[in-house]
Amino acid sequence: MTFHVEYPRTVPARRPEGHQPAAPRYTLRWDKPVGELISAYFAMQGHGLPPERQAGFLERLTTGFGEADGPAAHEVMRFVDEAGETNAVAVGYWTDTTAYARWSRGSTVARWLADDARLAEPGIGYWREAIAVPYDRHETIYSAPGYRIGLARTAGAAIVAMTTNGYFGAARDRIPLSAIDALESPLAAAPPEARPVASRGKRLTAATPHNMCVLRSGQFWEDAGPEQLGDYRENLEPKLMRGMDYLAGHKGDTGTLALRVMTNIDADGAGRAETSVLAYFLALEQLEAWARSHQTHLDIYHHAIAMNRKFKAKREVVTWHELFVMPAAASFEYVNCHPRTGVLPYCSLFEAAR
Amino acid sequence: MTFHVEYPRTVPARRPEGHQPAAPRYTLRWDKPVGELISAYFAMQGHGLPPERQAGFLERLTTGFGEADGPAAHEVMRFVDEAGETNAVAVGYWTDTTAYARWSRGSTVARWLADDARLAEPGIGYWREAIAVPYDRHETIYSAPGYRIGLARTAGAAIVAMTTNGYFGAARDRIPLSAIDALESPLAAAPPEARPVASRGKRLTAATPHNMCVLRSGQFWEDAGPEQLGDYRENLEPKLMRGMDYLAGHKGDTGTLALRVMTNIDADGAGRAETSVLAYFLALEQLEAWARSHQTHLDIYHHAIAMNRKFKAKREVVTWHELFVMPAAASFEYVNCHPRTGVLPYCSLFEAAR
Repeated sequence: MTFHVEYPRTVPARRPEGHQPAAPRYTLRWDKPVGELISAYFAMQGHGLPPERQAGFLERLTTGFGEADGPAAHEVMRFVDEAGETNAVAVGYWTDTTAYARWSRGSTVARWLADDARLAEPGIGYWREAIAVPYDRHETIYSAPGYRIGLARTAGAAIVAMTTNGYFGAARDRIPLSAIDALESPLAAAPPEARPVASRGKRLTAATPHNMCVLRSGQFWEDAGPEQLGDYRENLEPKLMRGMDYLAGHKGDTGTLALRVMTNIDADGAGRAETSVLAYFLALEQLEAWARSHQTHLDIYHHAIAMNRKFKAKREVVTWHELFVMPAAASFEYVNCHPRTGVLPYCSLFEAAR
Repeated sequence: MTFHVEYPRTVPARRPEGHQPAAPRYTLRWDKPVGELISAYFAMQGHGLPPERQAGFLERLTTGFGEADGPAAHEVMRFVDEAGETNAVAVGYWTDTTAYARWSRGSTVARWLADDARLAEPGIGYWREAIAVPYDRHETIYSAPGYRIGLARTAGAAIVAMTTNGYFGAARDRIPLSAIDALESPLAAAPPEARPVASRGKRLTAATPHNMCVLRSGQFWEDAGPEQLGDYRENLEPKLMRGMDYLAGHKGDTGTLALRVMTNIDADGAGRAETSVLAYFLALEQLEAWARSHQTHLDIYHHAIAMNRKFKAKREVVTWHELFVMPAAASFEYVNCHPRTGVLPYCSLFEAAR
């Protein structure tokens, strides 16, 4: 079987009349029913972050991921954030919310993260950003069917051809719930403004707003030969980084609440030929507006399309994304982090009651 | 159209082979796609609760419900809780989560409830318990098609005949997600124990656990003639109250986190011939265990069935329920309430960060 959810449309599709994409793209389907999807990011944060500390943290996380009710897939990554601090990241993917909920209480990682000792490590912060959505609040796209990353590594997932691509609005059309829900932000009329927060020495839970849009967008060039590697490094990557710099530098205008450019790393902590951007937007509509109309995105988009057309099945750079529109939640936690970490500047913050 | 969600089963149905119910029952369907359902309970709590204060509160709520993005239906009720305090309750039903999220920020009620002045009214508490679920996490049943209450009052809802009834496990089988998810509590192995909390003078957010089961179960006898009224008052109601007393008195054993027997009231604050029980259980499985095996429920169940069989279409007492299995949420708020209010003794509690 191939599982999917579809609703009788009450919100018009964005697909133009008669549209057929010039080239196929791919998306995920599972061979079993999947009610809910979870991606949970765990990170250690600090200036410089010594290699042995990073290695110890990632070892702890990946060992914990192997315990009962652990994730179906995981990856490890690293990035330097806007405050100049290094963040070592482990992301786990679950397709069973109850298993995730059990793991997030009972695992060694959960107990270790909940320990008050985490509040008192000088210069070190920890954060957990857990994205949990019903199946009908997600969509995926891959430029090629052969490389598995992110959700595509979970058991039962298959990368299959689709034709809901190649026009602005296709990502929205791929989200099943978009057929019956405009997925608007309730904060659209009064978007939150960044504010300073007191976050050091504290364990803060952030309440993320209804319909916050989560994008993990990636590129993988390990298999690229000299020609395509050169093009990626000299053309696509700089365009991509200009786009990300624009979003990160214009958070208020673009509805960007946080954005990190992460590099996948190997067991020794060395960077792989793979990066992804984890970004949060107040509303899908704002991400769409940038994608449709801003030159920094059009430059990325047109170059990626041109290379896909030029090399066709011989294209050696894989691009992909997975997108989630989250219901209101209080599933992001920041422990002794710096005040500009993640969504801290934008969201309502809570502490455990005394 | 009639909207509904169904999944290819991976979890066996509870329905016995070849089961056909002896009598029809009814359930809700909407004539439009409904992605998510919200019932939000707002209450004022105090010893005695003078009629003019109750009336003022309910007037404020129902006026607020009439503002932009307000609920599709609402009711007002009253009950005396286990601590002996009176609670005046207004419940709103939405079928649009974004509208609910907008209303819960922008309405006069939201601003009034968020005001710190609510923390300083002597002897008066306020609470808000908002239950928001995707459509596939709910089910309903009505003994008759003619009376509309609760979710059944929302626009586009119709009470339709069904045959998924008349056996233990039918409620579970009616929840679409149960076809692919056992809906277990992640806390089953270590259920929370009641603990004293410091709640007066505070605004506390309670994090309700994943798959908490919410039941609103009601009875309406306004149209009952002397014979059926007598039977309700002398037989069914006492059995019902014994069952509720048992659950409320054995919270730990039964997984009951809170239980209130509420009476609907009219515009003058007088009780109507209608009650409902709002109860929270750690897991659907625990509610099922009581229903299947405990004498207090069997007494209710057998009497209700006997009366339905005796009077058939002339049955003048309507019984019904609506049930939700909630994802993990932080959508219950308690402002200056007594420590035994709602789920306060059982859930993780948070305050706004300073």
